[in-house]
Amino acid sequence: MTSSASALPFDDIRNLVAQMPGPDAEAVADVRAREGNLTKPAGSLGRMEEIVEWLAGWSGKSRPKITRPMVAIFAANHGVAAKGVSAYPPAVTRQMVENFAAGGAAINQICIAHDLGLKVFDLALDMPTPDITEEDAFDEANCAATMAFGMEAVAGGADLLCLGEMGIANTTVAAAVLAALFGGDPKEWVGPGTGVDSDGMERKRAAVAAAVARIGDVKDPLEVLRRVGGREIAAMAGAVIAARLQRIPVIVDGFVATAAVAVLYKMRPDALDHCLFGHVSAEPAHPRALAEMDKTPLLDMGMRLGEGTGAALAAGIVKAAAQVHDGMATFADAGVSGKGVE
Amino acid sequence: MTSSASALPFDDIRNLVAQMPGPDAEAVADVRAREGNLTKPAGSLGRMEEIVEWLAGWSGKSRPKITRPMVAIFAANHGVAAKGVSAYPPAVTRQMVENFAAGGAAINQICIAHDLGLKVFDLALDMPTPDITEEDAFDEANCAATMAFGMEAVAGGADLLCLGEMGIANTTVAAAVLAALFGGDPKEWVGPGTGVDSDGMERKRAAVAAAVARIGDVKDPLEVLRRVGGREIAAMAGAVIAARLQRIPVIVDGFVATAAVAVLYKMRPDALDHCLFGHVSAEPAHPRALAEMDKTPLLDMGMRLGEGTGAALAAGIVKAAAQVHDGMATFADAGVSGKGVE
Repeated sequence: MTSSASALPFDDIRNLVAQMPGPDAEAVADVRAREGNLTKPAGSLGRMEEIVEWLAGWSGKSRPKITRPMVAIFAANHGVAAKGVSAYPPAVTRQMVENFAAGGAAINQICIAHDLGLKVFDLALDMPTPDITEEDAFDEANCAATMAFGMEAVAGGADLLCLGEMGIANTTVAAAVLAALFGGDPKEWVGPGTGVDSDGMERKRAAVAAAVARIGDVKDPLEVLRRVGGREIAAMAGAVIAARLQRIPVIVDGFVATAAVAVLYKMRPDALDHCLFGHVSAEPAHPRALAEMDKTPLLDMGMRLGEGTGAALAAGIVKAAAQVHDGMATFADAGVSGKGVE
Repeated sequence: MTSSASALPFDDIRNLVAQMPGPDAEAVADVRAREGNLTKPAGSLGRMEEIVEWLAGWSGKSRPKITRPMVAIFAANHGVAAKGVSAYPPAVTRQMVENFAAGGAAINQICIAHDLGLKVFDLALDMPTPDITEEDAFDEANCAATMAFGMEAVAGGADLLCLGEMGIANTTVAAAVLAALFGGDPKEWVGPGTGVDSDGMERKRAAVAAAVARIGDVKDPLEVLRRVGGREIAAMAGAVIAARLQRIPVIVDGFVATAAVAVLYKMRPDALDHCLFGHVSAEPAHPRALAEMDKTPLLDMGMRLGEGTGAALAAGIVKAAAQVHDGMATFADAGVSGKGVE
């Protein structure tokens, strides 16, 4: 990552967040009007219909189609891994990035199944961010630069963006971010991640508690991100800002991605209205994070892999919803009788 | 439908149900062995992994692939429609069958999105079954013949079968079947279906109560089907028997399809082990029907359209699960370190 050239101070990030547009009401109205004429009882496709309205509102398209969906995976390493918080060694982050490139990971297969593009962004894997129990993860310039890197990543014309991550020890970092943003006992934001054993869980709880205690009562969301976050988390937050500005609807993956976007939610409660939460993961604190933001995930499959797998699986449903709305006949087209018409 | 030639008495149906095989334990063991070597933490894909084991068990394939998925829609008309139980006139059944043929319905679009084949079976639409509040829907020969028709429908080499239906007034029939099979106040099995108004709901509750009262305490599931069922319901039950015998895993759609397969569940509690329930519908009694059989649906999208739409949407997830298992690299292939390995 050569990001220093594009480094922004936090004030510029705040300005971008403030500029994020609302939904396109005209496109939503167009979708609703067509929806009412399609050959099915009104409302009978439930959340599928809501998804199409959401696509219209945030893409600005009156008849949204998904032809260039993309999964973006941000990968990073974390100094806190040295505290023995993960079931896997930090070397696995790079090994999995290589596995993504070779097409051997779970996310590659879901991208094949649902015809999704995949881009993987390697965020300085050889230079883990400092151990957040002892030091801040970033200085302001580097944190903002990493967010800017994430913003650039979404350039290229995707019409649906699935956000995922890879990073050994990043559920520890995500728990610290969520605890600092939403409060409560920091240890209760901790879960087994990839499957750490009970001793590892104790170390993980201690690490999250120490990181949160170290920063005291910092409330500014960007400061939380800077002090106890990590590179993939900052990059995902940046990507979500850029997607809103470029009118690209977003599907957020699981626990770590949710922590990233929660930073924006705390800056502006409507900041995530262009985001759909693809699934609720098996990581125990994920439902709580979603509830804090009043978000209803699309799928509940007991998944806890990351890599964007939950978001990509949900993208198959979002693609189908768009196809249903775009491809269906109207009652008039098909010569089908309406409700109560003999 | 010219089914009398293939008519079977119920004893032959009972024999087929008794002959339905169990899962292929060797194929399941093969999937589990490979699953443990794939480049992800064990168990981290949750229900996706369970789906692949299920595919293996019921297809008999050690490395299941989905290359010929098919949606089968059975369409029928019902004399009880004359009681004013539906928001739509009976003519809509045929109009929608024509819409399926023309590619204009919701199910056509989901089949496009997930690359599923679609076959529609028109079950004597011009001759509705008798009004079940007054007469039995079938005699034994015709009921068994319609089940046999459903059995033949699954021939042709599909490797995943999604079962759906179309039939104005068929949520009334399904409620009567479920009430007769599972008991309780018949009116509590009744919901709005395609969206009948409150007067229509009263007529619908009265019709279901009258149909169930008419048959008294009949407990034999095939007799319930014969007396208060309908053609698409009998055909779907037949298709599920044949799929089991031919080792084709099945995805069941919503309320009406669930009523059809509940007949088999009541004959043999493991009769539906090769069936996955694609979604829980918005029809209020659907969760109860699933709970009676201890089935956990895959999706919860507030859908209530029928046509196999919920099953077809779930098929996208099942296809992805098979692709993940088949396409992923093992730890050894990819040179990725395992759990706890430095």
